[in-house]
Amino acid sequence: MQKALEYVDENLDTFIEDLKSLCSIPSISSPNEGIKECVTKIREILEESGLNVKVLELEGANPVVYGDYKPEHYDKTIIFYNHYDVQPADPLELWESPPFEPAIRDGKLFARGVADNKGNIIARIKAIESILRTDGDLPVAVKFVFEGEEEVGGISLPKYIDKYKDLFEADIGVWESGDRHENERPSVKLGYKGIAFFEFFVRKADKDVHSGRAGLVPNPVWRLIEFLSSLRDEKGKILIDGFYDDIDINNEDEELLKGIPFDDEEIKEEYGLEEFVGKFEGFEALKSLYLKPTCNIDGIKSGYIREGTKTIVPSEASVKVDFRIFPGQTPEKLLENLHEHIEKYGFTDVEVKYYYGYESAKTSPSSFAVRIIEEATRKTYNREPLIYPMSVGSSPIYNFINKLGIPTVSIGAEYWGSLVHSPNENIRIEDFRLAIKNVVNIIDELSKH
Amino acid sequence: MQKALEYVDENLDTFIEDLKSLCSIPSISSPNEGIKECVTKIREILEESGLNVKVLELEGANPVVYGDYKPEHYDKTIIFYNHYDVQPADPLELWESPPFEPAIRDGKLFARGVADNKGNIIARIKAIESILRTDGDLPVAVKFVFEGEEEVGGISLPKYIDKYKDLFEADIGVWESGDRHENERPSVKLGYKGIAFFEFFVRKADKDVHSGRAGLVPNPVWRLIEFLSSLRDEKGKILIDGFYDDIDINNEDEELLKGIPFDDEEIKEEYGLEEFVGKFEGFEALKSLYLKPTCNIDGIKSGYIREGTKTIVPSEASVKVDFRIFPGQTPEKLLENLHEHIEKYGFTDVEVKYYYGYESAKTSPSSFAVRIIEEATRKTYNREPLIYPMSVGSSPIYNFINKLGIPTVSIGAEYWGSLVHSPNENIRIEDFRLAIKNVVNIIDELSKH
Repeated sequence: MQKALEYVDENLDTFIEDLKSLCSIPSISSPNEGIKECVTKIREILEESGLNVKVLELEGANPVVYGDYKPEHYDKTIIFYNHYDVQPADPLELWESPPFEPAIRDGKLFARGVADNKGNIIARIKAIESILRTDGDLPVAVKFVFEGEEEVGGISLPKYIDKYKDLFEADIGVWESGDRHENERPSVKLGYKGIAFFEFFVRKADKDVHSGRAGLVPNPVWRLIEFLSSLRDEKGKILIDGFYDDIDINNEDEELLKGIPFDDEEIKEEYGLEEFVGKFEGFEALKSLYLKPTCNIDGIKSGYIREGTKTIVPSEASVKVDFRIFPGQTPEKLLENLHEHIEKYGFTDVEVKYYYGYESAKTSPSSFAVRIIEEATRKTYNREPLIYPMSVGSSPIYNFINKLGIPTVSIGAEYWGSLVHSPNENIRIEDFRLAIKNVVNIIDELSKH
Repeated sequence: MQKALEYVDENLDTFIEDLKSLCSIPSISSPNEGIKECVTKIREILEESGLNVKVLELEGANPVVYGDYKPEHYDKTIIFYNHYDVQPADPLELWESPPFEPAIRDGKLFARGVADNKGNIIARIKAIESILRTDGDLPVAVKFVFEGEEEVGGISLPKYIDKYKDLFEADIGVWESGDRHENERPSVKLGYKGIAFFEFFVRKADKDVHSGRAGLVPNPVWRLIEFLSSLRDEKGKILIDGFYDDIDINNEDEELLKGIPFDDEEIKEEYGLEEFVGKFEGFEALKSLYLKPTCNIDGIKSGYIREGTKTIVPSEASVKVDFRIFPGQTPEKLLENLHEHIEKYGFTDVEVKYYYGYESAKTSPSSFAVRIIEEATRKTYNREPLIYPMSVGSSPIYNFINKLGIPTVSIGAEYWGSLVHSPNENIRIEDFRLAIKNVVNIIDELSKH
């Protein structure tokens, strides 16, 4: 693969041009913008790189762009997952250059979606192109899946998998993203949290009432507070019966986590904090971050919220809550437990709206997939990779790991300063170069397996 | 006084014209509008009615219009309190006629401020005019105090009292307002609740953080919920040490309250409720409404509160809370107890903002002032008055009762459908007529005392 790695260096400038042209398309899934144009562009890039392309479509869903290359003889198939949709770019005024006019400054490429995760789309396609152009063939079969709804809950991907199951079959999966730590070590993530997003409503009087009547007219905020207090204790433990029953987090995960550097004071300074949740410190705090489910309040609203004073008993109150769930848990089971909780404690006046959710999944550290990707990553970066048992965030990796049974690991071209979902999102050109080479090395390792 | 009462009937139309002209001035204290014009108009009306007028002024405060009439010989002085400022009129689109273009429909006069409480301003002045024009003199001395900041906390009145103390001295006081019950019995209120308005803030991270970090980064809403839960139990009881220590509510008050009609089902229907605070019913609910302090949430806000979903740990949360307090309690003592509570339970990360407040006050049912006003009201309306030990709302009646030591009772020209502070505020012309006559009868009763 030496020639392929040299091809990467020689053609880096044109790869960056492709990345810039992909990033100039505002493929925002909420609202649905630039999707068609983006699909066409990815199709073009895949074809130019020597891959076969199918654009899969389902009624009411954004298309999935599927690309593959099958050599005449091969033992293994590798599948790459990415998404071409991006977050909205607002607040626009905080961008130093326009979000959809990719700009290079200081060795970094700035654009909405460049880190999350168009950089990885281009890096992976161009790695395959580099091998094909220098070796004329691939030692393994490759598949690409680019979906367009990751930023809005990823609800259509499982439907695509159900319909086109054989297209998705593979021996090893590479998931969307990964970033380099402040210490420059590359990350390899074995899993992602799941998520379930809810809104809870309480309605009492049919209109706002003068608060002189607060002794008579029930206040929906007080009621919502009683309900929320029943869900979680001060340490962050979730109080819903059965919530923890099926969680599959074990010693192996904790052992892996011990390898992750964690400086309490540095993190506190980064977020301007005096203490962490539950007053946890050191490894306990790290476990709370990576290996414990959470029940989080994203927003709460009731009554008079402008400047100054107004004396009312509000008629309604609402709160948005997300749960991060772990392997073994499902949003469906959580919803069921939540309804039982509501019945048990008499909170039948709390209305539950379920927005979306998906389960968590992780690949075992002893999987051959981890060994291959770890080895390739070590070689590419010339540094020991950081192996995370679980990512901080959620991503529907269960589609590969649980639904298709593919051991899947997540790596990528980002770094600690990529500002994903924020203004001035960026990747470093050097990380982009290494991310391409890493995929070349992964193909090489896989072919030797 | 028979001639005075006849004069009321004969001149009712011109009294209504005066009321309409006063109501056409938008004397909104928040923001400060139409104040000067309103002061001039009231001065004119007072002088035309035969009273002496002083416009009192203090730096940074809206003027107090003071009017009086002292006969050569008199035993007793009666003082009337009203305010000429009104609530903002929005939402304007819900008014059937413009709020500052007074209109008569169906025997009712509609305008912002006509019930709260310009109707009473005119009724009381015109009662004195009616006696002066028909008897040529008054049997008692009268004083009028019209302030312009009642709707914004009434913070300047005590300062006026301190500066012009002798102007305010009297034997009996008549406070701003009173309404007729659905059963048409007139109300006589012996006191008002006090109030203390706060906002509480919790700030954690210095920016909103991706909620995948909810296991590490403390959520200010969860913290605010812990704090709020420490303030009040599910029955509405306030859990701050020392809160109830000095409350002067006794059997006499409860006995009076037993005379107030209360139909649980009718009230539930009026507000669209299934149950009352604390699941109280009947007299217990009535006591909770009139004789128990409350801690009420007027508004709460944190994080993402628009449509749809966003997964963040918000950086800050805030809640607006009003306490209704009772005789014996003061906002200053409450604030002190609150700070002790915060220290005791370690809520030092909760920031307290105190907006405004004043104490509660009530006149003893055995006071001669109550007997006089009760007797006059019985005669005027030819119905048994409803004697309330306490009003539902708050008003700074403590200025008269506690600060000046004047036994003071509240009556007025409103009725159960007056829509005070709401669109289509109105009084019934018949109630306006009777409210004027009631003041004539009160003067008559007082002169015989």
